[in-house]
Amino acid sequence: MTLRTRLTEKLGITHPILLAPMGSISGGRLAGAVSEAGGLGLIGGGYGEQAWLEREFAAAGNRRVGCGFITWSLAKRPHLLDAVLARRPAALMLSFGDPRPFAKPIQAAEVVLICQVQSRDHALHALEAGAEIIVAQGTEAGGHGGSRATLPLVPAVVDLVARHAPKAMVVAAGGIADGRGLAAALALGAEGVLVGTRFYASAESLGHDSAKARIVAASGEDTVRTSIFDAARGYAWPDGITGRALRNDFTARWHGRERELAGAIDGEMARYQAAAGRGDVATAVVFAGEGADLIDDAPQAGEIIRRLVSEAERALAVAASRVV
Amino acid sequence: MTLRTRLTEKLGITHPILLAPMGSISGGRLAGAVSEAGGLGLIGGGYGEQAWLEREFAAAGNRRVGCGFITWSLAKRPHLLDAVLARRPAALMLSFGDPRPFAKPIQAAEVVLICQVQSRDHALHALEAGAEIIVAQGTEAGGHGGSRATLPLVPAVVDLVARHAPKAMVVAAGGIADGRGLAAALALGAEGVLVGTRFYASAESLGHDSAKARIVAASGEDTVRTSIFDAARGYAWPDGITGRALRNDFTARWHGRERELAGAIDGEMARYQAAAGRGDVATAVVFAGEGADLIDDAPQAGEIIRRLVSEAERALAVAASRVV
Repeated sequence: MTLRTRLTEKLGITHPILLAPMGSISGGRLAGAVSEAGGLGLIGGGYGEQAWLEREFAAAGNRRVGCGFITWSLAKRPHLLDAVLARRPAALMLSFGDPRPFAKPIQAAEVVLICQVQSRDHALHALEAGAEIIVAQGTEAGGHGGSRATLPLVPAVVDLVARHAPKAMVVAAGGIADGRGLAAALALGAEGVLVGTRFYASAESLGHDSAKARIVAASGEDTVRTSIFDAARGYAWPDGITGRALRNDFTARWHGRERELAGAIDGEMARYQAAAGRGDVATAVVFAGEGADLIDDAPQAGEIIRRLVSEAERALAVAASRVV
Repeated sequence: MTLRTRLTEKLGITHPILLAPMGSISGGRLAGAVSEAGGLGLIGGGYGEQAWLEREFAAAGNRRVGCGFITWSLAKRPHLLDAVLARRPAALMLSFGDPRPFAKPIQAAEVVLICQVQSRDHALHALEAGAEIIVAQGTEAGGHGGSRATLPLVPAVVDLVARHAPKAMVVAAGGIADGRGLAAALALGAEGVLVGTRFYASAESLGHDSAKARIVAASGEDTVRTSIFDAARGYAWPDGITGRALRNDFTARWHGRERELAGAIDGEMARYQAAAGRGDVATAVVFAGEGADLIDDAPQAGEIIRRLVSEAERALAVAASRVV
């Protein structure tokens, strides 16, 4: 069994499930495994290192995968887009920043443009850029994101897309870590889901084992949206975009004290980098979403896809049986 | 048609829809209209004024309604509980604070205890108190609430309740303003929904017409979680609980400047009270959730119920048709 939607038709995939292009986590092996299991894997272009991208596309082998970029970062290294388009990706996803400057080359390469948005205004910009797939991302998502929550954001974006670009479609992201979330997304009018944290805790993800173990042990209440990890890593993110991460010693010390951190940044950056280098997740960031409650193991990505689909089918059957 | 769940069975209602007991908004007329249309209306006990409660129970007439209290405020006026229990309410809902001191008299009166929670820890306390219905409320809700989002919180609480008290059940709240949200809540494993903002903008609500008009015009992006309205009204809420409200001149001036507001509080309280008295929503609070995007009118509550149910049925039928 499967779930057939406009997303599966558009992308030629079996299940309406996209792997979130998590920077330094969603490598070619994970993206390839998601695609092989019937979803679509998106390699995490992150801040953009060409050698890393070349290696990870190679690791995906002959599996059909896509790629995602941080838009404001891509604007500083626009040549990366050409390098990835030359790989003929199944889709190109842009998040966080104005997608309009990049739309033309993507469309000229006949690659599907996916834009991730955090508000209705962002969605309008994405439609202006000609995005065919809009990922409406809620604040419960792990990693970078905005302030609106998935459940009310998705139908609002669905209505907006139906009005402005009825051929485009909406994919839900944020807080979706099991099949109930997938079922709920379809009920909200989405054509599929984009899933991050659940795949972070998979066998094929590039995350440290210590990070995967923390996600498996964590609750959604152990996560927080914060800008301190970006400060410690020297990244200047746009206003209103923060990263949801697991609380640790570093958040206990600095979250809510951003001004003091800015004053101590040189020493803290060095300390942070050293900790990150040795995989010390008491200091280093582990991006994770509120769906962490629903994650109790780190199986193979193919097993995650199978569970998502079978749980969603069961959830939809039960919910539909309530109608009398 | 209707949606039959354990909630409708438990409460003897037709549709699995509860009116949020919004203080000074959910009066007897609105609660009665929701019950008459097949849901269950909960009168908003708010900070607790006995005369107001007596009047609003009278306004509900012979319709079967319940009542909701702010738990930490009820602790200061515990006699109100007896006054309401004497009215033989259909259910008694407690939110924000430790429900355990109040559970015994509610159970002794054979009244259904509903506890609203914002985290899994809160849910455990509510189950310890013997709550039969747990409302898992997401941060996208209007009015007071916590920081976790509805879509991942609901299944996490569903799992916890199934493990600790399988006879109890979960109701979803936060961001639910149309039938797609109701359908999604059922897919997540909830037995029904608790709806606030959608009913604020109804003919029978006690809200000012100017406030209803602002909700109808607003987007979810126009809302913000803040403590400044509580400060201006002299209410000391527990840590971590803020109120989601429409942005206005007062939030533009003070949100994010809580310390400065505390320094100017005497003058600002007087200015605030005067504005609230004349219904000036540029200064006075209009609590509203992110579901505001989905609210385009202020019809009668019975019409809202009919739409919620018919839209949910359609959404579930469409979602279930994706399974092939």
